[in-house]
Amino acid sequence: MTEKSLIFPAQEYRDRVTRLQAGMAAGGLDALLLSAPADIFYTAGFLTRFWESPARPWFVVVPQSGEPVAVIPAIGAELMGRCWIPQIRTWDAPDPRDDGVSLLAGTLADLVPESGRIGLPMGLETHLRMPLADFEALRTRLAPRALVDATACVQRVREIKSEAEIAKIRTSCEIAARAFDRVPEFARAGRKLDAVFRDFQIALLDEGADWVSYVAGGAGCDGYGDVISPAGPEPLRPGDVLMLDTGAVREGYFCDFDRNWAIGPASDCARRANDALWQATEEVIATLRPGHRACDVHAMLCAGLRRHGATPSGGRLGHGLGITLTEWPSFTPLDTTPLRAGMVLTLEPGCETRDGHILVHEENIVLREDGVELLSRRAPAELPEIVG
Amino acid sequence: MTEKSLIFPAQEYRDRVTRLQAGMAAGGLDALLLSAPADIFYTAGFLTRFWESPARPWFVVVPQSGEPVAVIPAIGAELMGRCWIPQIRTWDAPDPRDDGVSLLAGTLADLVPESGRIGLPMGLETHLRMPLADFEALRTRLAPRALVDATACVQRVREIKSEAEIAKIRTSCEIAARAFDRVPEFARAGRKLDAVFRDFQIALLDEGADWVSYVAGGAGCDGYGDVISPAGPEPLRPGDVLMLDTGAVREGYFCDFDRNWAIGPASDCARRANDALWQATEEVIATLRPGHRACDVHAMLCAGLRRHGATPSGGRLGHGLGITLTEWPSFTPLDTTPLRAGMVLTLEPGCETRDGHILVHEENIVLREDGVELLSRRAPAELPEIVG
Repeated sequence: MTEKSLIFPAQEYRDRVTRLQAGMAAGGLDALLLSAPADIFYTAGFLTRFWESPARPWFVVVPQSGEPVAVIPAIGAELMGRCWIPQIRTWDAPDPRDDGVSLLAGTLADLVPESGRIGLPMGLETHLRMPLADFEALRTRLAPRALVDATACVQRVREIKSEAEIAKIRTSCEIAARAFDRVPEFARAGRKLDAVFRDFQIALLDEGADWVSYVAGGAGCDGYGDVISPAGPEPLRPGDVLMLDTGAVREGYFCDFDRNWAIGPASDCARRANDALWQATEEVIATLRPGHRACDVHAMLCAGLRRHGATPSGGRLGHGLGITLTEWPSFTPLDTTPLRAGMVLTLEPGCETRDGHILVHEENIVLREDGVELLSRRAPAELPEIVG
Repeated sequence: MTEKSLIFPAQEYRDRVTRLQAGMAAGGLDALLLSAPADIFYTAGFLTRFWESPARPWFVVVPQSGEPVAVIPAIGAELMGRCWIPQIRTWDAPDPRDDGVSLLAGTLADLVPESGRIGLPMGLETHLRMPLADFEALRTRLAPRALVDATACVQRVREIKSEAEIAKIRTSCEIAARAFDRVPEFARAGRKLDAVFRDFQIALLDEGADWVSYVAGGAGCDGYGDVISPAGPEPLRPGDVLMLDTGAVREGYFCDFDRNWAIGPASDCARRANDALWQATEEVIATLRPGHRACDVHAMLCAGLRRHGATPSGGRLGHGLGITLTEWPSFTPLDTTPLRAGMVLTLEPGCETRDGHILVHEENIVLREDGVELLSRRAPAELPEIVG
């Protein structure tokens, strides 16, 4: 009961908080108010699947100096007590009269002077995980303190992964690679797609995933219509391309990559699309360096696909990866985030095959000073065929 | 590609919208703005695991009359197009300049007069799933229209399950019951808890779960310290009580119940606690009726536990269940929500066994006009033992 429950040594979390505090100092923030599961795991090491219950808000407050304070429902006291944060304040949640607002307001008021500024993530790819009415009440209680956006402060720190984090993501990638190896054991013509999805999740668990937060995919002749649908009971047919994509989790860290297979002999159309995707990815792996921007990757992938005769699909062509299935930045024409060494990223080019059908390819990488290091085991250059 | 992707016939969703619109009329709301995955699944039938990516916000707008409008990232157009909502507006997300705010503001401005009121869930157990800064921009754009709390409007509709929904939850419960039956095959003294968690998830998938959104549990002599921790590598020991709790999902609907086992012969302490939990639950199953309030269930369970010699643990002793692992109401002393026929609920009494250790028992029920109907297969009265 009293074992520590920490994914990393406490020093890892202390280092993270120190880096956040440096960003806070630069941004003139007296405290950081965190409510998202990923931010709370990042700072406190508090890992649970209980986020699946929307009933209760949870908070970590990072002051400008000193240690964070956890302000959480009493149901989490035992687990948080096995993490590294010494100061834990709890209330009996859910409480319809005051669901932690007074406790949180008091904690922040103790740490931040009336002239002070409290930052919280308010920007792209963030959510406030507390009831909006409670946030309004909190803002009133804290006035004249200002509640300001701290998205950049959090993102610039979290987006650079430590070697310890990279090792965790690599482990998740290896688990997925072994599960992908086993797909030909259970995916074949006549097998229903939902059964294949189930078996793939079983394979991921069997290979060491703690849990499988994400599986998507698709199957169709020369490609699929989208990449976010759950599986239906339609059987795989000869001529289909099957795609499976996963965010399997080990010790709180995700992988996120997919693989494609031809069911029966691959059509020329599918083979050409796969070849263009593979080559375009290969070229980015060879040339990407710190100093490129997120939008540059989008341009590089699109140029590579066109050079190899393919039409890029819409949407982003990759993104950050780590504590959540997807993190910023986004490889779109609009995202100018500078890429830096230590970022873990997905390269995810997609191309159109025929009317409304696409093929999507994905690898996970870490950007190093001298270029790309693969975290996912590289997909085979040729579209693999599942025959018989 | 063009198959409909609906869990229920379109009429089920139309009926839901009609009920929401009746609540909106009663509450003086001209439109409802929904952003939470559960609310979007509830109204649109849009089911995906892609919520795992925090990158993009998604919206469904329900006008006071007529059909809802989906305002969503383009990546979801294909899947939403296979649902029942005819009007779908998309943007290329994520867009750092304007991530759907203008599209959403325009949609709402078309539907709601300047003197109108737009409701969104802002209360207990709700979150706004969009960046806070974007919400502030939206509010400014929509002024002088008022954005007001619509928690009660949504909850009073969603909390009464249709027979079609109850059937889905019953199916999820049956899947879990079959997986619980198999636990003695893989849980025994010497086996590590994280391996048991993995095998339990595999059993759930094997028995028909589409995915396993939640598994928690614990193990310890005469009980466990909490019920939300992930599993560690500690082996099960003779004398432990093992608890496994799951929210397995089939067609978008959760079950949420647990089971306990003694590893080796059960101690008197564990047996007595299990007996009190079982009896207290049995009494509520026999006596609960529409008209009771949520707080009455808490009182009934506490009284039952005490009558059987046990000390109730803190926290809520059950809750609603359906599209999310936990829904309102909460069986606490403070929640006065009236219980009505059609509500699907968990009875989840916990009791202290010795210093810092608890035992928790859980069943899933639907409340009928004449009393309780079990959805989970009733736990055995005696604490089962895994021997050898």
